[in-house]
Amino acid sequence: MEYRIEKDTLGEIKVPSDKFWGAQTERSRNNFKIGPEASMPFEIIEAFAYLKKAAAFTNCDLGVLSIEKRNLISSVCDEILDGKLNNQFPLVIWQTGSGTQTNMNVNEVIANRAQVLAGKKIGESEPVIKANDDVNKSQSSNDTFPTAMHIAGYKKIIEKTIPSIEKLRDTLESKSKEFINVVKIGRTHLMDATPITLGQELSGYVTQLNNGLKALKNTLPHLSELALGGTAVGTGLNTPKGYDIKVAEYISEFSGHKFITAPNKFEALASHDAMVESHGALKLLAVSLNKIANDIRMLASGPRSGIGEIFIPENEPGSSIMPGKVNPTQCEALTMVCAQVMGNDTTISIAGMQGQYELNVFKPVIIANFLQSSQLLADACISFDENCAKGIEPNYKRIKELLDNSLMLVTALNTKIGYYKAAEIAQTAHINGTTLKEEAIRLGYVSEEDFDAWVKPEDMV
Amino acid sequence: MEYRIEKDTLGEIKVPSDKFWGAQTERSRNNFKIGPEASMPFEIIEAFAYLKKAAAFTNCDLGVLSIEKRNLISSVCDEILDGKLNNQFPLVIWQTGSGTQTNMNVNEVIANRAQVLAGKKIGESEPVIKANDDVNKSQSSNDTFPTAMHIAGYKKIIEKTIPSIEKLRDTLESKSKEFINVVKIGRTHLMDATPITLGQELSGYVTQLNNGLKALKNTLPHLSELALGGTAVGTGLNTPKGYDIKVAEYISEFSGHKFITAPNKFEALASHDAMVESHGALKLLAVSLNKIANDIRMLASGPRSGIGEIFIPENEPGSSIMPGKVNPTQCEALTMVCAQVMGNDTTISIAGMQGQYELNVFKPVIIANFLQSSQLLADACISFDENCAKGIEPNYKRIKELLDNSLMLVTALNTKIGYYKAAEIAQTAHINGTTLKEEAIRLGYVSEEDFDAWVKPEDMV
Amino acid sequence: MEYRIEKDTLGEIKVPSDKFWGAQTERSRNNFKIGPEASMPFEIIEAFAYLKKAAAFTNCDLGVLSIEKRNLISSVCDEILDGKLNNQFPLVIWQTGSGTQTNMNVNEVIANRAQVLAGKKIGESEPVIKANDDVNKSQSSNDTFPTAMHIAGYKKIIEKTIPSIEKLRDTLESKSKEFINVVKIGRTHLMDATPITLGQELSGYVTQLNNGLKALKNTLPHLSELALGGTAVGTGLNTPKGYDIKVAEYISEFSGHKFITAPNKFEALASHDAMVESHGALKLLAVSLNKIANDIRMLASGPRSGIGEIFIPENEPGSSIMPGKVNPTQCEALTMVCAQVMGNDTTISIAGMQGQYELNVFKPVIIANFLQSSQLLADACISFDENCAKGIEPNYKRIKELLDNSLMLVTALNTKIGYYKAAEIAQTAHINGTTLKEEAIRLGYVSEEDFDAWVKPEDMV
Amino acid sequence: MEYRIEKDTLGEIKVPSDKFWGAQTERSRNNFKIGPEASMPFEIIEAFAYLKKAAAFTNCDLGVLSIEKRNLISSVCDEILDGKLNNQFPLVIWQTGSGTQTNMNVNEVIANRAQVLAGKKIGESEPVIKANDDVNKSQSSNDTFPTAMHIAGYKKIIEKTIPSIEKLRDTLESKSKEFINVVKIGRTHLMDATPITLGQELSGYVTQLNNGLKALKNTLPHLSELALGGTAVGTGLNTPKGYDIKVAEYISEFSGHKFITAPNKFEALASHDAMVESHGALKLLAVSLNKIANDIRMLASGPRSGIGEIFIPENEPGSSIMPGKVNPTQCEALTMVCAQVMGNDTTISIAGMQGQYELNVFKPVIIANFLQSSQLLADACISFDENCAKGIEPNYKRIKELLDNSLMLVTALNTKIGYYKAAEIAQTAHINGTTLKEEAIRLGYVSEEDFDAWVKPEDMV
Repeated sequence: MEYRIEKDTLGEIKVPSDKFWGAQTERSRNNFKIGPEASMPFEIIEAFAYLKKAAAFTNCDLGVLSIEKRNLISSVCDEILDGKLNNQFPLVIWQTGSGTQTNMNVNEVIANRAQVLAGKKIGESEPVIKANDDVNKSQSSNDTFPTAMHIAGYKKIIEKTIPSIEKLRDTLESKSKEFINVVKIGRTHLMDATPITLGQELSGYVTQLNNGLKALKNTLPHLSELALGGTAVGTGLNTPKGYDIKVAEYISEFSGHKFITAPNKFEALASHDAMVESHGALKLLAVSLNKIANDIRMLASGPRSGIGEIFIPENEPGSSIMPGKVNPTQCEALTMVCAQVMGNDTTISIAGMQGQYELNVFKPVIIANFLQSSQLLADACISFDENCAKGIEPNYKRIKELLDNSLMLVTALNTKIGYYKAAEIAQTAHINGTTLKEEAIRLGYVSEEDFDAWVKPEDMV
Repeated sequence: MEYRIEKDTLGEIKVPSDKFWGAQTERSRNNFKIGPEASMPFEIIEAFAYLKKAAAFTNCDLGVLSIEKRNLISSVCDEILDGKLNNQFPLVIWQTGSGTQTNMNVNEVIANRAQVLAGKKIGESEPVIKANDDVNKSQSSNDTFPTAMHIAGYKKIIEKTIPSIEKLRDTLESKSKEFINVVKIGRTHLMDATPITLGQELSGYVTQLNNGLKALKNTLPHLSELALGGTAVGTGLNTPKGYDIKVAEYISEFSGHKFITAPNKFEALASHDAMVESHGALKLLAVSLNKIANDIRMLASGPRSGIGEIFIPENEPGSSIMPGKVNPTQCEALTMVCAQVMGNDTTISIAGMQGQYELNVFKPVIIANFLQSSQLLADACISFDENCAKGIEPNYKRIKELLDNSLMLVTALNTKIGYYKAAEIAQTAHINGTTLKEEAIRLGYVSEEDFDAWVKPEDMV
Repeated sequence: MEYRIEKDTLGEIKVPSDKFWGAQTERSRNNFKIGPEASMPFEIIEAFAYLKKAAAFTNCDLGVLSIEKRNLISSVCDEILDGKLNNQFPLVIWQTGSGTQTNMNVNEVIANRAQVLAGKKIGESEPVIKANDDVNKSQSSNDTFPTAMHIAGYKKIIEKTIPSIEKLRDTLESKSKEFINVVKIGRTHLMDATPITLGQELSGYVTQLNNGLKALKNTLPHLSELALGGTAVGTGLNTPKGYDIKVAEYISEFSGHKFITAPNKFEALASHDAMVESHGALKLLAVSLNKIANDIRMLASGPRSGIGEIFIPENEPGSSIMPGKVNPTQCEALTMVCAQVMGNDTTISIAGMQGQYELNVFKPVIIANFLQSSQLLADACISFDENCAKGIEPNYKRIKELLDNSLMLVTALNTKIGYYKAAEIAQTAHINGTTLKEEAIRLGYVSEEDFDAWVKPEDMV
Repeated sequence: MEYRIEKDTLGEIKVPSDKFWGAQTERSRNNFKIGPEASMPFEIIEAFAYLKKAAAFTNCDLGVLSIEKRNLISSVCDEILDGKLNNQFPLVIWQTGSGTQTNMNVNEVIANRAQVLAGKKIGESEPVIKANDDVNKSQSSNDTFPTAMHIAGYKKIIEKTIPSIEKLRDTLESKSKEFINVVKIGRTHLMDATPITLGQELSGYVTQLNNGLKALKNTLPHLSELALGGTAVGTGLNTPKGYDIKVAEYISEFSGHKFITAPNKFEALASHDAMVESHGALKLLAVSLNKIANDIRMLASGPRSGIGEIFIPENEPGSSIMPGKVNPTQCEALTMVCAQVMGNDTTISIAGMQGQYELNVFKPVIIANFLQSSQLLADACISFDENCAKGIEPNYKRIKELLDNSLMLVTALNTKIGYYKAAEIAQTAHINGTTLKEEAIRLGYVSEEDFDAWVKPEDMV
């Protein structure tokens, strides 16, 4: 491989000559061989592109950067956003906890690529654009990286997570309405209980997702706050006046999402409570989705020795050894995602609680887990929606069979003959393997006419 | 011990004759000898008292319960709330997951105590008030227990957790203002960084707590929804028309907090997302408080070989072997509480994700952990506030000494001479053990006058 | 209330005159009003009694404590172990993270009670026994508290947790043997699969518990290591030669369990990896027990609309509204305990990871959670064993009905006619609602004789 | 793109013609678009190659597979292990929870690649090797996937995790010996305490890692048990006699690690306790490493306003804005890995607790997290070792300065003048900002000679 020499404040280092990155990126590659290469989420690189462009425009507007430099920086940022420089960001999550090296990776790539765009060779003469003094002007890793975290996380939630969950919610809602009169047995403690309709059951899931979505949206204002302008420790040292508000406006303009400058920059650098808070809502959604997916696979279980009250789509052969077997695989993928999100919440919370003084140095692990959770939940909900939820159909025959057999219809008699006599009827029918009606009449507690009038599943829902 | 005979649908059982509880409570005592007796939080019993009284009033208003019965039930509920029946609730958390046995404990105590209030002996003739048919009228464990959970949790958060955190927040805010001009060294990565003021540092904590409080308050609407009226599976079987709305109004009136009936009762029985959501906010606060307490103990560390920038109160001898030692014990108690709350969040989330069909049967473990977290956070914040935060004082001498020595003041030169030359100054001073000024002048990058004009810590915050 | 004046190095303080504790205990009571009073587990107090007695004997043997003092200290320790001083330990978990205040509580109670045993009044003249200089001789909180943690935790695991789990394991093993020939349908993905016997299913649970017990026992050597002798920072300052080994021998003798002195005292003070490790095994057992309890309630579900393959004991009425309902309440209690243990593991791990320099100051929260988990698992296993597992019986009728219907018996044909033709038979029977045999013959793949010879559930297990 | 038609029991489907996979792989690609493509860890594919080869050899030995078929299957397995078919495994973690689709991916690739190796075209005539009937012979996904999990996990632990941790342990041990006489101040509660040597401090870390390694090795026997031979539900249906033991021997031979057949196959399919158990030990190591890394960054903090008792290597510029700043970045990477491992433990435990009946369907998420943790810990320990631990050096000047100043040296006087007088000396010196010696003499408690004789830091360690 061909190399060129780059240098930084620690000295010289060889860098692959076909790459735009510089000394600090290269040092990080060598010093942090932890896990697969380039694991830093690309969403963070894209967020940095918005941010660096916005900083260049703001610096220019405020008179501390020339228009020429602004335009060069901006052009490279656009190239990043167009996906033209994807192989220029080799760093891993497991680097310095401030993300400094990824900030410098972006600074270096922008500076060197700008050199080329300006028609010069890298290393030739004084750089047209300097990584620290120009690209990073009015910035520190300590405020840029958390800003990139919020941009990336907010975008993902808005563009992916929420719409995907809403799609699943809409399907469940439409199914809920469709099946609102399908009376079936209810189950509590896994045991037979009083009737409910299939639509009612599904309506509970819809409400769960609506509540989860509301909770998630409640966290967005905090997540829309940007640390940028705080620089090294939150004081905003080395930024021109008005910088923080203006740069947030440019980021909003470029990214298409409404961001504001964080009212307190000290909090924005030293804690990641906004991430902990938002991910808490993702965890809540995982809790809900786990329940929903679990119910659906239990309701669809069988085909002959399970509950079997609903049909779900048969998408693939289920077994490599048992011919003809079909499994609730979408439920399984979704619940595995839920388990992952639960663990990610532990990771993020533990990382979030360990900030020290002016900085929390668990930034990369926090955003990596956050983005994984928000993407996986989004993808899994779409997958579950399209390949499972949309195809849910009642097994009317089975539903009727189980309902007619149920002993818990006896509950309708409580208000007529009291809890104790009703219990006696149910217990006797249970022991004798008979029907409630038979025993109710035999015990002399209810006449046949009354029984038929009082015990109507369709009136009990 | 003296016993009397009680019975339920499973048969007869002996009960201590000085207790009001009945057969089902006694069965539960015998069948669930898990952990210390009477571990079911008393807040749940009190919530049941509000609930049973409200149900009696509603049932009476709606014509399904006589005024006499209403008044008897109501009188016993008032006795419970007055603390007169505290030794009547012996059951544990680790019982049936629906809390049925605690619901029946309350039903039985009310029925038997009412019998006595009515001037009769327990077991004498037909009961004046029946546990299932009267006290539990228009109710199921499946809707009463989650209602009690919300009443107890909501009350605790409003009456204890929020005001306690606000007190600590207020102290930190007032200290932040008091010390807003105390310039000190900042620290990132635990390493010396550019200056900050002590007031600014504290303002970050204030913002953290404000954000946490906002997040917690965002969860209260969901927590204020009551399952009552859903009865066995959410359909509201065996309730009179209008019951659910009215009973929530009575609960609001009696408890002094605004509750509403849950818009979807299926969700309210089968999930505990409201609890998961609210506790998520408590966990967020634990994450914040851990950071705050940890910072404070690091800032106060020493007295001679630590950071030592602040003084905190010396409340007790710190060591049984090292004479004269004083420790940051309030920080330790608070961070231990935070660790507990983090674990409780895992418990509650795992419990919350395992609802099945129409019911989640992890109700007692959820509310027990929820109440523990909300109480511990409240108590620990008050303790920390009164015994530590209120006494925080700067160690001006030490602060000045560390600030004057700092190499990171060099950052002020970035915009004057560029990052690279500034780095050279700092590195040289570091190696030589000299001051920035000495090296800046010696290297010929800055004149003495410029240095004095440019490098002013008080201008860098 | 009557008071007397006690004092420590910070000055004077009023103490209730009917209590033996001194100034430092009283300060802690006042400074740490967090959660219910006296929450520090009593097992810790008992462990301190063993420890203080052992230290007195060792100090005496090694010539630094008189026989008279040794005997006085020893007498009070015996009183503590006999339960005579239970109301003398009012402190909470949420105190200093080293447990210093509980160590001093014990030191003070022993000193003052010894004063009385020696026939003097508390406060009268020079104390016969001094809390710091005599009771705490050759000790620090930093080595005594972790020693007490190990004594208490080890005892609990050996005396309670292991035997209780073994009892449940024995029951399941005996049931497994009893039902080893009860052929039933297997289920994977909740869907019908090839046959298995009920005894085989149960044997999996037995193996899970055996593995869990082995894992738990693997952690005991580490847990049997005692920090005592390390004093303040692990160096053993102020201890006589040979002290650490001898004191571990006395603790073994007094407690009846084999303890050894920790080979590295620095690790023993600064980390609680032994606790993290042992509790990891408790968490593993919770993972196993959750699966077992969940299976059992699913197998017992119904009675008419569930799986219903086994009967479990009907211990109490299951519902306050649904007459005749019986629920798998022991499964519910056990799974709630499992959720608690999972959360406690998070708490303990988070606490364990935050040691700093020579000390981990999350000691009380670690041991409190450890003891809760080990006790709850023990109690819940006994409860589950006696009230559920021992009563498990097959529902032969239901088992046969489901088995005969199963489509997955087709798997037996794989090796005869290949996976694809077998799948066609199963799918056709599924669609037509017919039997495998009918379709196998109709499709011409198998003769009636061959089918009967090849497809025998009892040969498939 | 070019396609060919593949089919399975659900019908036909188009597959890219340059790929060897078949219908079921393609269905899975379409049905599970969740997260990045090909996320199923490649270690699992390699483990399947060992397993499929071993199964072919065993089937051949036992007379149910021809030598020709065995050799063809074996050849493709070798190609997989040689990395020649890396782009043939496109499936994701988030598929069916049994991993069936990855098992079929392997079966299909082997069958189709064998067809080519046999000189035929895919789809031409009857396949030479059939995916289900030949490659999967005597197997089910339900026993192969867990077998692959154990092979992959065991290999990773043995080949990567343990040696990497041992390297770090060795470095710390050698540093511990090197610095065993470097007396420095000890710190408890972050506060100054009695002296300790730097080597003693490091010896605590060594012991932590040794204990963690021992705990990890304790879990290996369970992890070495293979499910293979259990087939669909654990009964071993459709396997020839002696298959399970022999196939484990072949796997041992091919992989170079000692595996045995699981004594209870029901446990091996339905639970993943072995994974939960082993990962528990990884979590324990994360707990230890977090403490170690945290200590080291605190000890190295500064350079002028922190503790500064040790130097660690300066590997890269630490700040994009603060010139000359160097940060403890290896500590940060390592502690981020620890946070990840902690969360992965939650994920794995939650996944492990949710097995149902004969199968746990969280297999892919469990192994993905397991492999991530074991790889990250390995890589991070190597990185930390080489880039940080090896370069730890004492800052002798600073160490001496802090030691000489310490007030806690007073502890040496306890046994001479008692705890109370010693405390008075320390407190007075603290208030007056004087030395212990000055106050000891001034208070008249100790003569100068005695002080010098008694208070010697080097005798206190």
